[in-house]
Amino acid sequence: MDKKNRGVFIGRFQPFHLGHVHCVQHILSEIPELILAIGSAQFSHTLQNPFTAGERVTMIRAAMDEAKIDASKYYLIPIRDLRIHDLWVSHLVSQIPSFNTVFSNEPVTSRLFKEAGYRVEPIPFYDRETYSATEIRGKIIHGESWENLVPTTVAKYIKEISGDERLRELMLTDKPMHQRHNQTYNHHQPSTES
Amino acid sequence: MDKKNRGVFIGRFQPFHLGHVHCVQHILSEIPELILAIGSAQFSHTLQNPFTAGERVTMIRAAMDEAKIDASKYYLIPIRDLRIHDLWVSHLVSQIPSFNTVFSNEPVTSRLFKEAGYRVEPIPFYDRETYSATEIRGKIIHGESWENLVPTTVAKYIKEISGDERLRELMLTDKPMHQRHNQTYNHHQPSTES
Amino acid sequence: MDKKNRGVFIGRFQPFHLGHVHCVQHILSEIPELILAIGSAQFSHTLQNPFTAGERVTMIRAAMDEAKIDASKYYLIPIRDLRIHDLWVSHLVSQIPSFNTVFSNEPVTSRLFKEAGYRVEPIPFYDRETYSATEIRGKIIHGESWENLVPTTVAKYIKEISGDERLRELMLTDKPMHQRHNQTYNHHQPSTES
Amino acid sequence: MDKKNRGVFIGRFQPFHLGHVHCVQHILSEIPELILAIGSAQFSHTLQNPFTAGERVTMIRAAMDEAKIDASKYYLIPIRDLRIHDLWVSHLVSQIPSFNTVFSNEPVTSRLFKEAGYRVEPIPFYDRETYSATEIRGKIIHGESWENLVPTTVAKYIKEISGDERLRELMLTDKPMHQRHNQTYNHHQPSTES
Amino acid sequence: MDKKNRGVFIGRFQPFHLGHVHCVQHILSEIPELILAIGSAQFSHTLQNPFTAGERVTMIRAAMDEAKIDASKYYLIPIRDLRIHDLWVSHLVSQIPSFNTVFSNEPVTSRLFKEAGYRVEPIPFYDRETYSATEIRGKIIHGESWENLVPTTVAKYIKEISGDERLRELMLTDKPMHQRHNQTYNHHQPSTES
Amino acid sequence: MDKKNRGVFIGRFQPFHLGHVHCVQHILSEIPELILAIGSAQFSHTLQNPFTAGERVTMIRAAMDEAKIDASKYYLIPIRDLRIHDLWVSHLVSQIPSFNTVFSNEPVTSRLFKEAGYRVEPIPFYDRETYSATEIRGKIIHGESWENLVPTTVAKYIKEISGDERLRELMLTDKPMHQRHNQTYNHHQPSTES
Repeated sequence: MDKKNRGVFIGRFQPFHLGHVHCVQHILSEIPELILAIGSAQFSHTLQNPFTAGERVTMIRAAMDEAKIDASKYYLIPIRDLRIHDLWVSHLVSQIPSFNTVFSNEPVTSRLFKEAGYRVEPIPFYDRETYSATEIRGKIIHGESWENLVPTTVAKYIKEISGDERLRELMLTDKPMHQRHNQTYNHHQPSTES
Repeated sequence: MDKKNRGVFIGRFQPFHLGHVHCVQHILSEIPELILAIGSAQFSHTLQNPFTAGERVTMIRAAMDEAKIDASKYYLIPIRDLRIHDLWVSHLVSQIPSFNTVFSNEPVTSRLFKEAGYRVEPIPFYDRETYSATEIRGKIIHGESWENLVPTTVAKYIKEISGDERLRELMLTDKPMHQRHNQTYNHHQPSTES
Repeated sequence: MDKKNRGVFIGRFQPFHLGHVHCVQHILSEIPELILAIGSAQFSHTLQNPFTAGERVTMIRAAMDEAKIDASKYYLIPIRDLRIHDLWVSHLVSQIPSFNTVFSNEPVTSRLFKEAGYRVEPIPFYDRETYSATEIRGKIIHGESWENLVPTTVAKYIKEISGDERLRELMLTDKPMHQRHNQTYNHHQPSTES
Repeated sequence: MDKKNRGVFIGRFQPFHLGHVHCVQHILSEIPELILAIGSAQFSHTLQNPFTAGERVTMIRAAMDEAKIDASKYYLIPIRDLRIHDLWVSHLVSQIPSFNTVFSNEPVTSRLFKEAGYRVEPIPFYDRETYSATEIRGKIIHGESWENLVPTTVAKYIKEISGDERLRELMLTDKPMHQRHNQTYNHHQPSTES
Repeated sequence: MDKKNRGVFIGRFQPFHLGHVHCVQHILSEIPELILAIGSAQFSHTLQNPFTAGERVTMIRAAMDEAKIDASKYYLIPIRDLRIHDLWVSHLVSQIPSFNTVFSNEPVTSRLFKEAGYRVEPIPFYDRETYSATEIRGKIIHGESWENLVPTTVAKYIKEISGDERLRELMLTDKPMHQRHNQTYNHHQPSTES
Repeated sequence: MDKKNRGVFIGRFQPFHLGHVHCVQHILSEIPELILAIGSAQFSHTLQNPFTAGERVTMIRAAMDEAKIDASKYYLIPIRDLRIHDLWVSHLVSQIPSFNTVFSNEPVTSRLFKEAGYRVEPIPFYDRETYSATEIRGKIIHGESWENLVPTTVAKYIKEISGDERLRELMLTDKPMHQRHNQTYNHHQPSTES
């Protein structure tokens, strides 16, 4: 229960992919316990956040088991977004075990935890251009091959819950033809959740 | 009180137009009772949602009377957006009488109700390129003729509450000249409510 | 669409009983249109608010039909509580058609609408000691006869959805025996929703 | 990932005690995986909810380790209260892995999950009069012995974070002497969080 | 702008009375700048919180002028309640200028700021049994003399906005006679806002 | 306390600049008291709203002192956004002293207060192309000179709290190189807060 040896890795994990697994393994080689804070926990069924928090908990546990990472070394905690940045640090702190290091590449999160006096370290991503959740969601939507970018159990689970079909349906539109400009999901400039 | 014969038509009705009337008549020729769920009920005074829920209730009742649709065959229920898709089905179910069919062309709504086991049918819109609320708001803003696209009583009501003037004022800007790029309301690519 | 002749009757209608029917008939003998604002719309499954807003809409429509009150003369609009009294008048105004008279016996509502310049009239309840929603919920819980206090269709509907069973189950407790003091539902001093 | 064999145990765990441990062991002797849904997750620092969700996660993990319960057999998920009962089932479902059985003695929760079609089973508490979180908080406040009612690691953790001192300070009052009537924490009739 | 010399006095000020004035004068004799954080800012029109935040700002400024306290030495900032104690410190910190001392007699506030590392000092109230907002509201309701307990300008302002009449009306009840038990406002055991 | 002579100036003041000072001086030459309503009070640490409400209160008080504007002639009140336009007028009215004139160039605010019967006057900005908060944030981000556009004490305060560094860090990105399109902060088309 010594917080000096616990870290928190904040992400949305939409979906959890091999880059995330690599990162967790890397961090756990340096510190004994890691909390995975599953952000935007209240959102689902959008192009940016297709999976529920519960589905993400399920796929991460499966991926961890597949990678033979001991369940006693990590915590999986859904965290809902507050959109009020002033309260973000306190909100996270209240929902998870105490920690001393934040792993994040996100500028707002990094800044807020630095201002609050925490140690913030960049996430050591492996081949970030390839292993990107944005890219994977784009591939699912466009019918390209994506299964090799996630753990086998995650690919299996996404298909089991028809998550690939869900993403493609969310891309459909009820707009008349001449209003459809914004409905393309471009790898490089994803449309934002309204 | 047999839910097998009740449907729900989900829309924002900003404003309620002749395409909506046509659609309601079509549905009521097939099922005995219809609930009109007036979505985004908490919003008003924006380019996308100019009218309050109460104003929309008023204009729909007037349009129904004009079309001689019996008030005992439908319900008008404002429904606020939750933006949390997981809760959307339960939220709607809790606020309206029980139903067995959802009429919607909106992909997220369709997907969520299908996942929850409901029958979802497309809205049988009549001449959708012409009868479109987006187009009508655009015409009001640009000073074009729009009155023939809505029931006579709806046009009268919108003018009575200065709804046309409201929409045009919402298009004005307090930005200095060189920051006004996004302030045009284009029929085909409407600026989004922030 | 002249608001001078429209009134709003604010209540929770848990459940809608013969006193309410009597009151609606009385008001509609004086003004042409009445809005029934169904308060605390977001709550259900508590001792004070056992029925959902949708269930209440259903039972009121059935009761009105039974009393042969024309559906074109009234509106049924669920209104969620805000608990922020300053915003209550604006909130109600935004969700319903315009009106000029508020029917309410509730002191906070009366005060707020008076401060906002509305005409507030007391609800002309018929035999208020007998026709009381609090009393009716108490009778349902204690297994006493209550059916004669509500319209026939309302009694039938409540049983159809097992609403009586629901109320009795909500009275059960998971507290160990010596902590159960507050769990009695007393007709005269109902326990409050936590 | 077969939901037929997963259960959810809903509680506030303020604090997690030996009765809870006994219950988890009993359930895990019958089904392979259990989700512990830590309710009222947004609350802390009150007489009813003294500990944060993060503190509760920490003490439950410690208690599970002490009882040699394998971390791969359970999930610890904080769940915030919505106070809107209609949405409670959907809210829980969205935040946790899929499940088929709900373990709860709480009447509202039981009723809601039964209405939604879930199997609900009573929590098989061991010596419920003794092992009660309400009783334990009362003993901490009154300076009585409580440590033997919780796992050794939980008692140690509560003291480490000065949780016992926190509870006693929350009992203090800023009311002048003659207004202090309600400030006693009675084992049998705890004052409610306002 | 050196926060070492700024304090914050947290209260609801319903209404602001001579005890508060005395306290502000005492604190300002020791430190150069004081922030008055007006709590429960979103509430009004209840027996516990009759006045809006804006009305409280108005009466405090008037009282300060009457007491010849220089407006450049204090800040008046409304703060809404969050009811989520974990976020309370961050919430207050984000809404007011930086400070180093908290003046509060309220146990939860004191505990939370102490846990966050702030210096907390008791409020040096003058004759607390007499100068109490609870007592003053009770006297207004019961038609007893209260004007001498508040600054002259505050008494004048409360009457100007009919605040005394508002409080008495909020005490009225729409309950039938035999359900009125809880409607007395007792000086020593005020009924709580539900 | 005569509201006929009080005005309210609604702005976000991100940051408070010399144009704002000029405007306040102009208004106070015509009416005796002014309320500065600090909008979007709950937001901070974004490109559009970098400073907390408390930081903005601090910088405005400092700027007012520097301009020798008497603190007894104005109020500084943070106001959080509701995003529900129907409630915006009531919300503002409840949080500030009574007033009769609204100073705003923002179309939605102007429209809503006009519909509610208030006098709305345009803000008499001085050299608006130069003194613009959007421009100033852009200059800070791009490392251009901005200090001469704000009062000396405001420039000093922003540096003291590392506000310039904060803004530049918020511009950084964790996106892989080919996804960075939207991350430029253009003076003329600022990226929107998500």
